[in-house]
Amino acid sequence: MSVPEKAVILAAGLGTRLGKLTEETPKGLLKIAGREILYRIMRILQELGVEEFIIITNPKYEGKFREFAKKNGFNAQIIINEYPEKGNGYSLYLARNYVGGKFILVMSDHIYEKAFLERAVKGEGLIVDKAPKYTSIKEATKVKIKDNRVEDIGKQLKDFDAIDTGFFVLTPEIFKVADEILLEKGKAELSEIVKRAKLKVTPLNGFFWMDVDTPEDIKKARNLIVQTSVKGSGDGFISRHLNRKISTRISSFLVDYVTPNQMTIITFLLGIFSALMNFISIPLAGILYQISSILDGVDGEIARASMKTSRFGGYVDSILDRYVDFAFLLILAYVTIKEPLWWAIAVTAIFGSAMVSYSTERYKAAYGSDIYSDIPTMRYLIGKRDERILLTMLFCLAGQIKALFALLAILTNLRIAATVWLVWKFKEQST
Amino acid sequence: MSVPEKAVILAAGLGTRLGKLTEETPKGLLKIAGREILYRIMRILQELGVEEFIIITNPKYEGKFREFAKKNGFNAQIIINEYPEKGNGYSLYLARNYVGGKFILVMSDHIYEKAFLERAVKGEGLIVDKAPKYTSIKEATKVKIKDNRVEDIGKQLKDFDAIDTGFFVLTPEIFKVADEILLEKGKAELSEIVKRAKLKVTPLNGFFWMDVDTPEDIKKARNLIVQTSVKGSGDGFISRHLNRKISTRISSFLVDYVTPNQMTIITFLLGIFSALMNFISIPLAGILYQISSILDGVDGEIARASMKTSRFGGYVDSILDRYVDFAFLLILAYVTIKEPLWWAIAVTAIFGSAMVSYSTERYKAAYGSDIYSDIPTMRYLIGKRDERILLTMLFCLAGQIKALFALLAILTNLRIAATVWLVWKFKEQST
Repeated sequence: MSVPEKAVILAAGLGTRLGKLTEETPKGLLKIAGREILYRIMRILQELGVEEFIIITNPKYEGKFREFAKKNGFNAQIIINEYPEKGNGYSLYLARNYVGGKFILVMSDHIYEKAFLERAVKGEGLIVDKAPKYTSIKEATKVKIKDNRVEDIGKQLKDFDAIDTGFFVLTPEIFKVADEILLEKGKAELSEIVKRAKLKVTPLNGFFWMDVDTPEDIKKARNLIVQTSVKGSGDGFISRHLNRKISTRISSFLVDYVTPNQMTIITFLLGIFSALMNFISIPLAGILYQISSILDGVDGEIARASMKTSRFGGYVDSILDRYVDFAFLLILAYVTIKEPLWWAIAVTAIFGSAMVSYSTERYKAAYGSDIYSDIPTMRYLIGKRDERILLTMLFCLAGQIKALFALLAILTNLRIAATVWLVWKFKEQST
Repeated sequence: MSVPEKAVILAAGLGTRLGKLTEETPKGLLKIAGREILYRIMRILQELGVEEFIIITNPKYEGKFREFAKKNGFNAQIIINEYPEKGNGYSLYLARNYVGGKFILVMSDHIYEKAFLERAVKGEGLIVDKAPKYTSIKEATKVKIKDNRVEDIGKQLKDFDAIDTGFFVLTPEIFKVADEILLEKGKAELSEIVKRAKLKVTPLNGFFWMDVDTPEDIKKARNLIVQTSVKGSGDGFISRHLNRKISTRISSFLVDYVTPNQMTIITFLLGIFSALMNFISIPLAGILYQISSILDGVDGEIARASMKTSRFGGYVDSILDRYVDFAFLLILAYVTIKEPLWWAIAVTAIFGSAMVSYSTERYKAAYGSDIYSDIPTMRYLIGKRDERILLTMLFCLAGQIKALFALLAILTNLRIAATVWLVWKFKEQST
């Protein structure tokens, strides 16, 4: 199934339930987690192959949408609905001269994760969710289905099979039905059109999507966006069970105020500060180091949540992480170790810590893909940064610095040997 | 221009000028630098899109060619020329029922570099070289060109414009001309067919290609294959001007006897041995370290020359290189340094040495391409491994170990800062 070339976006509503927030700004242009609701939809649809957008709005917001499309380089036509009182079915009807074949219809106040949109663009008719995880059923538009088609639709339906996701893949046939209803009544709601057309339904269950109607929805959407922005595949045990639980909360809090790059710098400075703290207090240094490790997830989470990821950001972040680890362990060694033999062990730990990352990044350079996706067993190897830092904190609190260096020296270098062995086993032996 | 689907290979000659070498083995199956001449042609043509090979040979060699094709998984038809005395034009004629449209014709005793074949498959008629760099004109088949077509062809031509490369892109029209000549004379040479057909010529000048007729040619071909197998883009100053000049000679010598993986292990063991030598004699250790640095190019050269490169080989090699550098500098520090401050400086040098490679490999992981190709300025940054090792040897000979660590600590970490800055400048600022 090919992706439709054009997408019609309904954005003529006034969003009165959001009060002051929408006095100046249309709902679709409210920023959630650093990006306008509409930016999220349009950016992903564009990546999936949609070439042109038709935005239907009311006269009040025309300028705002033009500015938004221009600023972000979206290829968008702005069409004005001079009679919003004729209903959102009339807004759709206004798009009739701008679309030829199959097209997408989507509401401007909905948020969808990428995995949802990837599948939805290949669907047919109304995309429905039979097991909505993130949308309150009470507020949702319900759909009664018969023979894979809409039998009834509405917010008040008692007997229903699925929830309307606000996303449609339509053909120009729909305009005939809209025309009929408009001729009869002088106005038309989208739900009436859908019902009369007995539109096909495509179920798509359990993905993250929601509509934004109230200030509470905005907060909920922000938290969910951040939570679904955790990278994951390369996370160690401590990240999954401790660091991420805290860092996503911090990210939700900061995502509207701090850029990913600012966060990278803040985390780096805190890491260096924790390293220097070893001159004053080793236990305190260990605690600060663990805090910087938790914060280390925030820049990536903010970047993904606000759709501001950059290869350069990831590149610099990973080099700075190596320098923080180096600085912490070096200063820790400097303030505790005198004997050359223990220095040699500390150096082995410092080198091994950098090489853990080297062995996985060098894999990506060689094979062009992520080692944790290619070789799932890699996820069970201990010795990743989050685990090393937690261990470091614990040994700093216990004052067992030599034991720490010995442990890290062994752990990291064994991990690298195991990594090479796993790469050989999974990538070479099998071919 | 699309690449022809089929390639006809003429391998019916007995290769008498190679004496004993071709008593048992047809010329095309002689190994040069670890691979049969024909393997080189067929493997590259296959990569370029050729789907089927038609090999014309004499009854004596049929089994050898079948075995060769099977062992290497080549999709090849073996056709027997029962009358080799009818000339190589008759061999070509035997392919007439096996090819439909445009096809490649190539001699089994020629070696071509990949860059030549990439262009040649898109050519038309006879591919000629107007400025042959590697082939002796005396022995070559000369071509007189008129209006972009062959006017005359032969080894004895006095007045000529180019050299026959033994590579053709033909259409089935050529079989009519062959048929004509065979009817007239009962035999046909390829050169007669080419001349009578007034074949189009495509010039392709100055690439590495040669034909193999004599034992001296085999030796020459091996050396040239190794020399054109130098990777290059990431080589430092010392590599280009010293190490490679020596390593390619060693590679030419070893390529028929040693596998790339064996060489990786030998080089690694020598590197570790040089590190341990620091316990006995630092100047000697420095010299051995530099020798291991020269040998470090050999595994890659042998791998490329014998078409046995593997991603895993490159992966392991680069991890082992880091361990050799680590071991050398660590033991050097251990036998010379007592003071924690100097240990800290040595650790900074050891960490920085690993990070130089990290910063370029991590680039490839992020951007999917080679940093030295993307950002040519990178080639002028000093501090690469070959340069660091030569410096290390010189300072070891001079007994200035502390100065060495201070220099390496500064040089490597400045280089990393410069790398990050260049990536930002070339990849981010420009977009």
